[in-house]
Amino acid sequence: MSQQIYLNHGATSLRKPEPVMAAVTTYLQQNQELAAKRSFMGDASERNRYLAREAVAEFFNYPDASHVIFTANVTTSLNMILQGCLRPGDHVLTTSVEHNAVSRPLAMLQKQGVEVTYLPCGVDGSLDPQLVADSIRPNTRLLVMTHASNVLGTILPIKECFAIAKAHGVLTVLDTAQTAGFLPIDMLDLQADVVAFTGHKGLLALAGIGGFILNDEAAAVMRPWLTGGTGSFSELADMPTVLPDRFEPGTPNELGICSLRASLAWLEAQDYLALAQQERELTQQFLAGIKELPLRILGRQNIQESVPVVSVVPQQMSCDELALQLFEDYGIITRNGLHCAPWAHETAGTLATGTVRFSFGWDTTSWEIQQAVQALTEILTKE
Amino acid sequence: MSQQIYLNHGATSLRKPEPVMAAVTTYLQQNQELAAKRSFMGDASERNRYLAREAVAEFFNYPDASHVIFTANVTTSLNMILQGCLRPGDHVLTTSVEHNAVSRPLAMLQKQGVEVTYLPCGVDGSLDPQLVADSIRPNTRLLVMTHASNVLGTILPIKECFAIAKAHGVLTVLDTAQTAGFLPIDMLDLQADVVAFTGHKGLLALAGIGGFILNDEAAAVMRPWLTGGTGSFSELADMPTVLPDRFEPGTPNELGICSLRASLAWLEAQDYLALAQQERELTQQFLAGIKELPLRILGRQNIQESVPVVSVVPQQMSCDELALQLFEDYGIITRNGLHCAPWAHETAGTLATGTVRFSFGWDTTSWEIQQAVQALTEILTKE
Repeated sequence: MSQQIYLNHGATSLRKPEPVMAAVTTYLQQNQELAAKRSFMGDASERNRYLAREAVAEFFNYPDASHVIFTANVTTSLNMILQGCLRPGDHVLTTSVEHNAVSRPLAMLQKQGVEVTYLPCGVDGSLDPQLVADSIRPNTRLLVMTHASNVLGTILPIKECFAIAKAHGVLTVLDTAQTAGFLPIDMLDLQADVVAFTGHKGLLALAGIGGFILNDEAAAVMRPWLTGGTGSFSELADMPTVLPDRFEPGTPNELGICSLRASLAWLEAQDYLALAQQERELTQQFLAGIKELPLRILGRQNIQESVPVVSVVPQQMSCDELALQLFEDYGIITRNGLHCAPWAHETAGTLATGTVRFSFGWDTTSWEIQQAVQALTEILTKE
Repeated sequence: MSQQIYLNHGATSLRKPEPVMAAVTTYLQQNQELAAKRSFMGDASERNRYLAREAVAEFFNYPDASHVIFTANVTTSLNMILQGCLRPGDHVLTTSVEHNAVSRPLAMLQKQGVEVTYLPCGVDGSLDPQLVADSIRPNTRLLVMTHASNVLGTILPIKECFAIAKAHGVLTVLDTAQTAGFLPIDMLDLQADVVAFTGHKGLLALAGIGGFILNDEAAAVMRPWLTGGTGSFSELADMPTVLPDRFEPGTPNELGICSLRASLAWLEAQDYLALAQQERELTQQFLAGIKELPLRILGRQNIQESVPVVSVVPQQMSCDELALQLFEDYGIITRNGLHCAPWAHETAGTLATGTVRFSFGWDTTSWEIQQAVQALTEILTKE
C-alpha cells in the first residue's frame, strides 16, 4: 500500500501550507530564537512575538494585542484559565460534550470545592441555551464551552448561551480547539470574555504553541497559576500585573509563534471561510456516501451545524477492527476510541464502543473522500 | 558595526549545532508532527518521543525512560513539581540564589500555607551544606535548589545538601537550567528525586521544550497539576496513574522533542565535558582580562566552582549604560538587570544596581573573549 490518506484533522493538521514551512525554515536559518527582553538582541524575537500577538488579536477580533497570551497548547490555556478564575465555593457551568482538557481540570477543581454543572447535550450533541439560564445560581462564576464537539462535530450555540451568561454577570470562556480556522470567531460579537486556542489544528501552525485572549473583565478576576521569570519586574515576588507578562512566565516556543504568525497570514490571504465551505462540501460527500452502510452515524449530519468531523460506529465489528482495516488495507488514517472526550461519548451513547472518527481539513480532496467511502463500503458489505 | 558577539548563553543558546538543525529540518519536511496514540499514523511521533525519553534518561543517568516527562520549559516543570508535591502545612527549603522559576511558585505556595525557608548563600553565592541540616523541621517535605546561580555562576554543593535531605526523608529537586550540558549530572549519584531541565540553554535544543525526571518516591507523592487529555485512559475523570501519561496532558512540542533528541546525541558524540573545559578556559581568559578594570566582579572567580557566567558592576556608570555601549559600539550582546533572580542579587548586594552578565557557550571563541575584554577596557578606562 503506497498512498496514505490522512483523515484525522480533528487531532492535528498534518501538512502545513508552504508559506508556513518557509517562515519556519527561514527563522531557523537565522537562528533567531531568543527570549525577548532577556538580551539586547531580543529585538527580532520581540518583534516576532509582537506581530504574532497582533495577528491573533485581529483573527479573533479583539482590539488589544497585549491581551493575547501564548502558552504551549490549549490544554495549558484551559488549565490556566479555569484554575485562575475559579475558587472554592464558586459554581461553574459547562457542557456534556467537553474534551478532557476542560473536564479533567474541572474534576480537579471539584475536589477543591468548586461546584460543577454539566449541561446535558442531546444525543446528537446539540444544546438548548435555555439550560444555561435554568442552571445559573447566585454563585455561578463561569461558563466554559467547547465551540464544537470533537467527537460529534456539532457546533454549540455559543452566542445564545454566552448572552444569557453575560446577562447574569457570568464569565464566558470559549474553547476553539475544533473551530478556529474553520468558523469565523469574533470575540466581541460572541461576548466571550476569554477565547482559548491551539495552533496545530485548524490554524495550521506547528504543535507546541497555543494561547488565549482575555478581556479586561477576565483579567481583573484571573490570578496567575503558572508563575516564574518574566524578564520584567523581576524584583517582585509575585507575577507582574501588566499583560501579557502576568500570564507568560518562562521561555516561550519562539519557532511555534513564528509558525502561527505565518499560518494566520496564510489563512487570511486564502480566505479561510472559502476553504471551510470546501470542507463542508467534502463532509456532505462523505455523509451521502456512507448513509446506506451498516453503521451508526453520530452528530447532526447537517454540514451547516457541524465542523468537518464524522464519527461512526459499525454494526458488525468493533471500532478497533474497522480502524485497523482502514489503515492496513487502504492506508486511511482515522482516529478510533474515545478521543479524549468520554462525556461526549456518554452523551452519544458510545462510551462502551468508542467511535471511528473521520475528520477533514484544508488539504483533504474529493478523491480522498471517495476512497474512504469505497473502503467503508467494501469493509462493511463484504460477503 | 558588522559583527555581533553573542555572550548571553545563560539566557539561551543561539546557534545550534548543524546536526540539530538538520534533524529539525528533516522532521519538518516529513511533516511528521503527529500526536502519539491519537491516530494510526502516530508511529513516527511515538518513536520520536520514545527515543527522546531514552536519550534524556541516559543523559541524566536514570534507568527508566517512562519517568521522563516533557513540558514546555523548565518553568512549567518547576511549577508542576512544586505545586504537585507541596501541600499547606508543608515546609520547603530552598536557597537565596534561586531563579524566579522557583521563587515565584514558592511565593504563591507560601500564600496557600506552605512554609518556605531560603537558605542564605554567601555574597559569592556559595552555600554551607550544614544550613540544610540546621533548617530541617518535622514538616520539611522538600528541598529545591538550582545547580548553579544564573547571576553569580557559583555551583552549589548539591551532593552534600541532597545527602543530608535524603537522610531526613526530604524530597530533593534539582533545577539544572544553568548546568545541563556543562556539568555531568547523575541523578542517582546526586540523590536527586527530581531533576528539572530545559532544552534551549546548554542542551542546545530549540526553545519550547523542557521537562523533568522523577523517581518512584517522587511519583508516589506528586499529584497532577496540569491536567487534560492524554490519549490514554480517556474514560477516567482524573489523570491516569501510569507514567509518563500522568503528567503529560495536551499535544506536545514534537519538533522541540526532535531537536532535543538530536542535540543530546550531538553533546554525547562531541564529548560535552571537553567542550565544558574549553568554556572554563574562556571564562578564565575573561576573568584575567578584566581583573584590573574599575568594576566589581561577582561570584567565586574560580572556574572550577562556577559555570561560565560572569556578572560585573561598573564603578563609574550604570549597568544599563555599560550594556548599551557594549552593544551599540562593539556589537557585544550581554544581559543586564536582575536576570529574573532578584534574591541572587540581594544575596550579592546588587539588587539596586543589577549587573551586566557575560555568559559563554559551546561556540564562544577566544577571539570573542578578547573583543569583550578590549571593549570593557576601552569603555571603563576612557579619558
